[in-house]
Amino acid sequence: MPPTSTELQSTLSKLQKLIEPELERFLQLSPDCPSRLQESMSYSLLAGGKRLRPALVLIACEACGGDLQAALPAACAIEMVHTYSLIHDDLPAMDDDDLRRGHPTNHRQFDEATAILAGDGLLTYAFEVIANHQKPESAALSCVLELSAAAGPEGMVGGQMADLQAETETITELDGLEKIHFRKTGRLLRAALRMGAITGGADDLTLSALSEYGYCLGLAFQITDDLLDITGNQAKMGKAVQKDQSHGKATYPGLLGVEASRERAAQLVQRARELISPLGNRSQQLEQLANFVLERDH
Amino acid sequence: MPPTSTELQSTLSKLQKLIEPELERFLQLSPDCPSRLQESMSYSLLAGGKRLRPALVLIACEACGGDLQAALPAACAIEMVHTYSLIHDDLPAMDDDDLRRGHPTNHRQFDEATAILAGDGLLTYAFEVIANHQKPESAALSCVLELSAAAGPEGMVGGQMADLQAETETITELDGLEKIHFRKTGRLLRAALRMGAITGGADDLTLSALSEYGYCLGLAFQITDDLLDITGNQAKMGKAVQKDQSHGKATYPGLLGVEASRERAAQLVQRARELISPLGNRSQQLEQLANFVLERDH
Repeated sequence: MPPTSTELQSTLSKLQKLIEPELERFLQLSPDCPSRLQESMSYSLLAGGKRLRPALVLIACEACGGDLQAALPAACAIEMVHTYSLIHDDLPAMDDDDLRRGHPTNHRQFDEATAILAGDGLLTYAFEVIANHQKPESAALSCVLELSAAAGPEGMVGGQMADLQAETETITELDGLEKIHFRKTGRLLRAALRMGAITGGADDLTLSALSEYGYCLGLAFQITDDLLDITGNQAKMGKAVQKDQSHGKATYPGLLGVEASRERAAQLVQRARELISPLGNRSQQLEQLANFVLERDH
Repeated sequence: MPPTSTELQSTLSKLQKLIEPELERFLQLSPDCPSRLQESMSYSLLAGGKRLRPALVLIACEACGGDLQAALPAACAIEMVHTYSLIHDDLPAMDDDDLRRGHPTNHRQFDEATAILAGDGLLTYAFEVIANHQKPESAALSCVLELSAAAGPEGMVGGQMADLQAETETITELDGLEKIHFRKTGRLLRAALRMGAITGGADDLTLSALSEYGYCLGLAFQITDDLLDITGNQAKMGKAVQKDQSHGKATYPGLLGVEASRERAAQLVQRARELISPLGNRSQQLEQLANFVLERDH
């Protein structure tokens, strides 16, 4: 394992130790939340995973000179939004998946109605967590705006709709594919960087650099996701692989071939690294993350 | 028609003339939102309806001495959240309804995946609208908190889950039934009043009185909803009636009988009227609304 990967593993597991107990704490709801709903939300939210989005919030906050503890509410909120999107994407009417992170998907473990409500609950609660716990007030309101715009109809939800339509309409342009992927995955990753920068008190120039870094990282992440669907190992991925092709989904390797897709990902990661170089020493973890996206095998 | 009703009709239609164009304007999204998603969101959001929740926001704002124009973003946001909840509640996995406001439900008009995403999109966009447009910033953040807490897992979503469970578990206590209904319907109505009071700059005492007024109004509204399911007219209601009993749902008339349910609603409306009497002249429209809830036939 190259040294970058080892260091990043240690960074991520240090951050996970901050994030996991906060997620658990936020999910200790009053009896007004029926136990079945709470179990269903916890089942998906506390199922592990890389916690990449909250880690990005914390790392960006610290890279901008902020205290990463202060960004924990925004970090937990974005993981709730990410988890809701997985629960709804897995539904029979959507991607109809049985397996997620090596376990039955939410609607297979519970039932469809509960899974819909667990997703709705996590999405709504994410905004409550920011409004109630993120300080200062002005950063909280900016985070609500970042997260809602990234996740909403012009962002992630729009990307998911476009992705569903792309299964029936053939996408032949790289530009069209990148637009879908930016909305479906990239905007939320970019929002993680922006929320971290905002809670870290970044100036406009740094916010804008981290924003573009997030754009590049998000697209690169999607390309490696597409590549892993072809070349990945089901056990490592914890979900079914080679589903994209059988579902007729537009993918980077499908459009560009495997080699050119790898090159495009490398280009994007190179650009991401350039964008954060002005941060000097403080860019180290962001650089490790960029490398990780390129090298990940799950 | 008694005079109160006529006056209220004129108040509501005046407010609708403010609300409808704002809802339309907010739904003019960029091309990043796929047209099918935009159509599906518009189909349900712009399908008419009483606009009771946004009207409550505006009326409460004005009753507290605020300018009702200033509360329009919060008013539109709560209607988006209400509409999302109807779209998801109608889904086959939930209440499985074909008809809503006299038209095919969203998933019947489009398809299930689109309806899930339209609901997700409206819910998320509601928070974007508040964060982006509600002024001042401190009121915007309070409105995000009110709306998310009322709609989330300890509020509306929790109530919907409890309601689904109540179809299999027999509810024999009035207290249990009111708890479900408060979460399912009442909390959002109360949030409308609270958001109006907040944007209207209310003091703590007035905020708390309007809050309890909203509680009473919400429960009374649910009781008359239950009564209309038994005694209502399908054409006037624009949806199927007598569904509750066939679905085995716990209802007020099922638990108390029709007469005692009517009395309970009248008690709640009487309490609501007492709560707003300190507002003097400015309470007029809130009083009309309380009477409307009792007298409505659709």
